[in-house]
Amino acid sequence: MKAIIFNDELKFVNDHPIPEPGPGEALIKVRLAGICNTDLEITKGYKEYRGIIGHEFVGVVEKIHGDNRKFLKKRVVGEINCVCGECQYCKAGLKRHCPSRTTIGIAGKDGALAEYVALPVENLYVVPEHVKDEEAVFAEPLAAAYEILEQVHVKPTETILVLGDGKLGILVALVLHLSLARTVLAGKHEEKLAIARDQGVPITTLEDLVAKKAFDVVVDATGSPDGLEQSLHHVKPRGTIILKTTAAEKARIDLAPVVVDEIQIIGSRCGPFEPAMRALSEKRVRVGRLISGIYSFSRAAEAFAKAQEKDSLKVIIDFA
Amino acid sequence: MKAIIFNDELKFVNDHPIPEPGPGEALIKVRLAGICNTDLEITKGYKEYRGIIGHEFVGVVEKIHGDNRKFLKKRVVGEINCVCGECQYCKAGLKRHCPSRTTIGIAGKDGALAEYVALPVENLYVVPEHVKDEEAVFAEPLAAAYEILEQVHVKPTETILVLGDGKLGILVALVLHLSLARTVLAGKHEEKLAIARDQGVPITTLEDLVAKKAFDVVVDATGSPDGLEQSLHHVKPRGTIILKTTAAEKARIDLAPVVVDEIQIIGSRCGPFEPAMRALSEKRVRVGRLISGIYSFSRAAEAFAKAQEKDSLKVIIDFA
Repeated sequence: MKAIIFNDELKFVNDHPIPEPGPGEALIKVRLAGICNTDLEITKGYKEYRGIIGHEFVGVVEKIHGDNRKFLKKRVVGEINCVCGECQYCKAGLKRHCPSRTTIGIAGKDGALAEYVALPVENLYVVPEHVKDEEAVFAEPLAAAYEILEQVHVKPTETILVLGDGKLGILVALVLHLSLARTVLAGKHEEKLAIARDQGVPITTLEDLVAKKAFDVVVDATGSPDGLEQSLHHVKPRGTIILKTTAAEKARIDLAPVVVDEIQIIGSRCGPFEPAMRALSEKRVRVGRLISGIYSFSRAAEAFAKAQEKDSLKVIIDFA
Repeated sequence: MKAIIFNDELKFVNDHPIPEPGPGEALIKVRLAGICNTDLEITKGYKEYRGIIGHEFVGVVEKIHGDNRKFLKKRVVGEINCVCGECQYCKAGLKRHCPSRTTIGIAGKDGALAEYVALPVENLYVVPEHVKDEEAVFAEPLAAAYEILEQVHVKPTETILVLGDGKLGILVALVLHLSLARTVLAGKHEEKLAIARDQGVPITTLEDLVAKKAFDVVVDATGSPDGLEQSLHHVKPRGTIILKTTAAEKARIDLAPVVVDEIQIIGSRCGPFEPAMRALSEKRVRVGRLISGIYSFSRAAEAFAKAQEKDSLKVIIDFA
C-alpha cells in the first residue's frame, strides 16, 4: 500500500504491506489524512518515532478482527491512543494516559498517513452522513481543543487569550469562544486570524497585544518553545496557562514569575471525540477555511513542503 | 541602626537611619531575623532588589503611626507583603497578589535584617508567650509551606514527594505529613533528612529514589533551576507539581512531557501566617533542629558565609 514513513528521513513508499488487524481491531481504508505539527516535529526528532506517521484521518472500515461488526463498512474517525483497558488509568476513565498505550503515528504503532490503518474498534466514531470527509478529518485536532474544557473550568466571566494562529490555535479559539468565555485569538497572520474572526472570535495581532497580565487563562498554541514565556506576560496572577505546544526543542525559561504570581500551568494533549464530532455535525465549528490544500499521494512530498510554509494551515493527503 | 544591605554588594552598616513608620504602620525592634534562600538569590541578582534585605523576623512593636494600639509592646511576626487594600486582588482575598504591593527585603521596601523594620499593623501576628523567638522566626517560611494546602486539595490517599532537604523542603514535608497524605522527603543530606524523619516523615536519598512517575504530587523545593525537570521524572500522568523554587537563573526544560502527561504545575509563594503560628504554638511542627547557627550582628558576614554552605540550614542574626 501507499504509506508515508519516517525513518531518519521522510519516505513515500508504494509497496508497504497492508496492516493485519489484531484482535478487536478494525482495518480502515483511509480516505483523507491530515498533516499535524506533531508530524513535522517527528521529522525533527520528536519522540524518536519511526514508522508510518499521521494520526488525523477519516476512512471506511473494511475488515474487523472479532465479533463487533457494528462499524463494518462505516465511515469513521478514531481516537489515536490504543490502551490496555486494565490499568488504574484505564479504569479511572483516563485511558489516554494508559502507561502501556501506543499512539498511532507517534509511539509504537503505525499511523494513518497511508492507504490503510489498523485501530481498535472501541476507538472508532461513526461520521454522520452530512459531515464531509474534509470536515471529519478535523475530528482529532478539534477533540484536542475540547480537552481544555475537560481539564479546566472556564467561566463565562473570564477572559481567555489564545496565543498562536496556527491550526490548533484557531480550533482552540473557536471552541473556547463557544464555551461563552470572552476569548481573544492573537497571531501573526491576518488571513489566519480572519478565519476565527469570521466565526465571531475577537482577534488581535501579536504586535497590538500589550503585555499586561490581563487574562485569566492563556492558551499557548504557538508551537514554539518560547510559548510558555510569552504566555507569562499575559496571564493574571493566580491565572492559568494551558500548554498545547509540543516541540522537540527545549525551552529556556525564567520560572520565578510562575512562583511569584502563583500561576497554574496545565499541559493538555488529546481530547474527547464525541463533542468534537457533535460540533462538526451541528456546524458550530466551521473548519473549511482551515484547509490549505488537499494533495494526492503522488504529490505527498509537495504536500509536506506546503505544510511547513509559514502561511499554511491544514494540508491533507487524499488516499481514496 | 545596624542593617544588612544589598547594593550590588552585601554591606553590613552600623549607621543606617531608623525607618519612620508611615500611616497605619508599626515600627518593630527586631530580635531575630533569618536568612532565606531568596536573600542569597538577591545577592546573585534576583529581582534586582536594592536595600535592606531580609523578611523573616520576630521582634517587638516599639511605635505605631495611627490609632490601632493593639500591637504596641507586643512580640510579633509579620506578613511580608504590603498591599493597597483597594484593588480587585485585595478585595478578592488575594492580597499577596496586589499588583501595587511592596515586599519587605525583596521588592520596594526595606527588609528585616536590621535593628528596626516598619510594617503595616494589619500584617502583624502576636506570638504566643510559650513560643520562643527561635521558633517564631520560622513563621514566614512555615506559612509558605502552608500555602500549598491553600492552593491544592491534598487527599489522604495521595502520595506526595518533596524534592529537596533544604529549610523549605523540610518545612513543606512536615506540613504535608501533618495533612495526612503519604509524604516522602527526598534529599542529599542524611542529617537534614533525619530532622524530618524524627518527626515521622518517610525519607529517601535522591540516589535511592527511582524515577518512575509514581507520585500524585511532587513539590520542587530543590532551589535549583533543574528542579522542575527532576520533578517531571516522579509525577504521575495528570499529577501536580508544586514549584517552590525561585532562582535567579533560567531553567532549560523539555516541556513536552508536561503536555503529553497533562501535568499541572502550580507556582507557590508566600502563605498564611495564622495556621503556621498555630502549628508552632501547638508544637505540631518542631523547628529547633533546623537552626544551623545564631550569630550576633558583628558576625553577620560569617553568618552569610555559613548560610551558603551546602550543609547549612537556617542561619539567624540576633539583633537584640
